Amino acid sequence: MHGIQPGMTEEKRKMSKLDFWYEFASTYSYLAAMRIEPLVKAAGVEVVWRPFLLGPIFKAQGWETSPFLVQEAKGKHMWRDLARLCEDAGLPPFRQPENFPARSLLAARVALALNARDRPAFSRAVYTAEFAEGEDIADRKIVAAILQKLGHDAHALLAKTEEKAVKNQLRANTEEAQRLGIFGAPSFVLESGEMFWGNDRLEQALAWAKRQS
Amino acid sequence: MHGIQPGMTEEKRKMSKLDFWYEFASTYSYLAAMRIEPLVKAAGVEVVWRPFLLGPIFKAQGWETSPFLVQEAKGKHMWRDLARLCEDAGLPPFRQPENFPARSLLAARVALALNARDRPAFSRAVYTAEFAEGEDIADRKIVAAILQKLGHDAHALLAKTEEKAVKNQLRANTEEAQRLGIFGAPSFVLESGEMFWGNDRLEQALAWAKRQS
Repeated sequence: MHGIQPGMTEEKRKMSKLDFWYEFASTYSYLAAMRIEPLVKAAGVEVVWRPFLLGPIFKAQGWETSPFLVQEAKGKHMWRDLARLCEDAGLPPFRQPENFPARSLLAARVALALNARDRPAFSRAVYTAEFAEGEDIADRKIVAAILQKLGHDAHALLAKTEEKAVKNQLRANTEEAQRLGIFGAPSFVLESGEMFWGNDRLEQALAWAKRQS
Repeated sequence: MHGIQPGMTEEKRKMSKLDFWYEFASTYSYLAAMRIEPLVKAAGVEVVWRPFLLGPIFKAQGWETSPFLVQEAKGKHMWRDLARLCEDAGLPPFRQPENFPARSLLAARVALALNARDRPAFSRAVYTAEFAEGEDIADRKIVAAILQKLGHDAHALLAKTEEKAVKNQLRANTEEAQRLGIFGAPSFVLESGEMFWGNDRLEQALAWAKRQS
């Protein structure tokens, strides 16, 4: 190949990295999760899928639930916005789940019990169940069915969510998110610390990541 | 001209209309105000500039000030986001004004004391003073200087802001915004009632307006 230098096959050109912070109860994280893979590939950026919980972060701000429930008018706009954005993105018709925000603890722990290679597909499948099929992702049966469909050992993985290492990993992610100044999801953080909040900033975050590589 | 039918010169083809709801203290309204004119022209859409006050709307939600002050981490991201977006939009370097949120009552009243033709240029000049020059737009001298520079009778217009008709127009705008379900600025509302919140939705709102014409 043209331009290859000695040693490059071992060393590999360093790819710019983007941390994708997402919360399974978050509607806009759903959009980002469904859009991110072709975009990072096109940008030549490495993405790290980092599930975390917004609950503790909202609680630290004095909220007991999603801001979309705290502010009724904002919530009403969000549902309409999601329907329009899903249509524009070529996603299935958006379905407002009965339970919102979902209790996302189980799904987040399963995502961390899986290895990094399997995490994206599982995460997308959870979001699809939640926001295209209106399922309750806090339901162990729903999560087990998703795992089985992806060829995983559902029983073993659900058992793993009770292990201290998995619980601690999710707690550590959430604490790191808070330390980084993350206040909502999705958020995109570059190695430089540059932070972008919201599905609307995915393209901009990737442009920055590309520039820094 | 090709395709002109009898009577069209008088009747004029009906243009789709978009109401641009903005608040002078709002950073993202600034971005929309600076971007909107070429975009509406390209889309063949008529824009109506509608200043209103967010204060009473926030108060109804139990907030005494901007959500960017209520939520510190969100505020921190917003300033950084604005700096990045201004650069991308080719605007002057973003300057965080000392007083945020600005008391926007005076500027909003002056905007409504002006006629619809003069409102956009005045509004853009206020935003530039506030977010590119760091001025306090609650200062009568700053507003007077803006009016003079635009060739208006500053003294007469400032006097007009004390008139009941102008005060009532601003109150009516704010009440209409609330009735429409507006909870933040900028917001874009089509004749159908379809509402889009945020500078990030300007392009989508125009695409919808175009489709409906």
